[in-house]
Amino acid sequence: MDKSLLMFIGSCFVSPIILFLYLPSLSLQWIILQSSLLSLGAGILTYKMIPTIAEMTAQANLAGMDLNKKGDAKFHGKKIPESLGICTSVVYLVTVILFQLFQWFSFPNTVLLSEYNAALASICFMILLGFGDDVLNLRWRYKLILPLFASLPLLVAYAGGTSVVVPIPLRDYLGGVFDLGIFYRIYLLLLAIFCTNSINILAGINGLEVGQSVVIATSIIIHNLIELTLFTQQQPNSTATSPHLFSLILMIPFLFTTISLLFHNWYPSRVFVGDTFTYFSGMCFAVVAILCHFSKTLLLFFVPQILNFLYSVPQLFGIIPCPRHRVPKYNPETGKMEAIPSNLTLLNLFLMIFGPMTEKQLCIYLLIFQGFCSGVGFGIRYFVAPYFF
Amino acid sequence: MDKSLLMFIGSCFVSPIILFLYLPSLSLQWIILQSSLLSLGAGILTYKMIPTIAEMTAQANLAGMDLNKKGDAKFHGKKIPESLGICTSVVYLVTVILFQLFQWFSFPNTVLLSEYNAALASICFMILLGFGDDVLNLRWRYKLILPLFASLPLLVAYAGGTSVVVPIPLRDYLGGVFDLGIFYRIYLLLLAIFCTNSINILAGINGLEVGQSVVIATSIIIHNLIELTLFTQQQPNSTATSPHLFSLILMIPFLFTTISLLFHNWYPSRVFVGDTFTYFSGMCFAVVAILCHFSKTLLLFFVPQILNFLYSVPQLFGIIPCPRHRVPKYNPETGKMEAIPSNLTLLNLFLMIFGPMTEKQLCIYLLIFQGFCSGVGFGIRYFVAPYFF
Repeated sequence: MDKSLLMFIGSCFVSPIILFLYLPSLSLQWIILQSSLLSLGAGILTYKMIPTIAEMTAQANLAGMDLNKKGDAKFHGKKIPESLGICTSVVYLVTVILFQLFQWFSFPNTVLLSEYNAALASICFMILLGFGDDVLNLRWRYKLILPLFASLPLLVAYAGGTSVVVPIPLRDYLGGVFDLGIFYRIYLLLLAIFCTNSINILAGINGLEVGQSVVIATSIIIHNLIELTLFTQQQPNSTATSPHLFSLILMIPFLFTTISLLFHNWYPSRVFVGDTFTYFSGMCFAVVAILCHFSKTLLLFFVPQILNFLYSVPQLFGIIPCPRHRVPKYNPETGKMEAIPSNLTLLNLFLMIFGPMTEKQLCIYLLIFQGFCSGVGFGIRYFVAPYFF
Repeated sequence: MDKSLLMFIGSCFVSPIILFLYLPSLSLQWIILQSSLLSLGAGILTYKMIPTIAEMTAQANLAGMDLNKKGDAKFHGKKIPESLGICTSVVYLVTVILFQLFQWFSFPNTVLLSEYNAALASICFMILLGFGDDVLNLRWRYKLILPLFASLPLLVAYAGGTSVVVPIPLRDYLGGVFDLGIFYRIYLLLLAIFCTNSINILAGINGLEVGQSVVIATSIIIHNLIELTLFTQQQPNSTATSPHLFSLILMIPFLFTTISLLFHNWYPSRVFVGDTFTYFSGMCFAVVAILCHFSKTLLLFFVPQILNFLYSVPQLFGIIPCPRHRVPKYNPETGKMEAIPSNLTLLNLFLMIFGPMTEKQLCIYLLIFQGFCSGVGFGIRYFVAPYFF
């Protein structure tokens, strides 16, 4: 087993476990523990199933060459099974549904159930469209529209407010709270489209799509645990459940099943994840952020994706010619990746700044950057934002 | 355009249109009209999109030989695109979601919304699993389990009672109403598994899977319209909505998009529908029957599927050897299908009773039988059942 991978996964678990232990409510800990145990089982199942499903996808001609190992004798001509996101995402859905079944018999709550089902419908529709894209190779313009349809059930079920808190310097002009009405729903729609596509374009080297999803999921879980602690401390006798518990219930199985996928997708990849995974992952993040009202905080965790998107804009909108794959160049003589400056992605920018490095090193650098951005994000959320809101 | 196909579709519309015109409520008519217009648009879109998607599925190697035209020079060696159910079902989902968006802003109702979202999640999950099956060729034992998972969201959201009305002759022993509790949910689960799989095994000739779905959908729509009329006559001033309106809103777009598929799938098929369609279709029927509480009536519309299932039992459970395809034999000299008595399906039974006939004739015979069974079903539901319940 790769040491850097184990260190990466281990470091993702440190903060959530500490925060979990310090949660001031036994009943919350019990729910989270149940979800974690079920998710651990789901993760082990995913890990065992992936090789079987990989054979099936390869037989269905869902397989591709690893572009970054061209000319490397070790990997010569080996096709890698694609779209293994389908395995992760289906196990994830089943886990979430089973947990719903279990919890439903103890905590019936119609509004929550309605949003939960909308979340399921949106995520499931996105997986279907992602898998359809992998199989049918849809055109670029369709890809942009798909998350729009998939996120509609969510927006309809969204029962939260449509008001935003106005930053303190602007309150003299706009008042304390500003109701965006229908524009708030449009903002949420754009958020879903952005989340799904931005993970899809920060990709191209082994382990990156899945690795960044693990970092973002961990960040969300840490945020949820902090908020749950604050909520319980402020209202120790409340019977209400914080929406952050809802987010945890969706994120814990996501984290476990995604880590199982990472074991197979880490350098050198034995499987690829496909658009199925990137869409699924982006939609999960959008869903929890929308339903649990932390879309601004989510964007703090998406800073690398935002930077990559902004840097890519000239190519995405056709101002500069855009090749089918915008990955860096692999040099089989040095075994390192080299920047192609005309491909405007964060990957090439990193290679230009830090010089050529191996594919694995590049992935680790980018994941460390993702984690660093989350850290800064937490700083902004908990130390800077209170001055403005 | 094939005349028998037009006659078939025309005859499906007669009763629903008459019942619609006699509906004693303008506001109900207005909602149904909106849904029908949106569904008509969805149907036209499906019709136009199918050839494009068919090219894509064929390129993705989702294509197969038409077994019943082996040895026929006219069709020699032509591969037919498979899994076009994906096109129908995705357009259907988008239509249902758009209608939800539209209705939500005028009629908010959380319980209904929760069930609606659960219906969406279940149907969507079933489409995903059906498409996954088409692409990955899952084994028989997995196929049986898939609808179980897909129907769980529905069962969790199911807010209806779990009691059954006891038939009059048994009331002395059991009382008027008997609460089945958890067994009612198990019954609903089995219903979902039966509906999805039973359409899947009454198949094998051009147009049959889609044709039978059109007949069943029409029967459900007729039943919903009758019940809506009775409901409005009995409670003319009620503001409550009958669950049958909910069923109509899901069945009308189903009917229109499915008819579009039938135009392409009718003999001689230019596209095949795949497990994607049969699972999707079975799940839609199960969903509306469960949420709108007419599961017993639904089974009356499923009589041909029940007969086919019972007749198939010895082969399905391995008592008699079961070949991969249980279709009749095509005789290229006469151009007719001939029974293979060892293949225990309704198709072979019909050919044994009525003698060899062409593939199109056999399909029409079976669809007429399906319609006849629905007619008998209505007789039982409205003239016999009142003596027992």
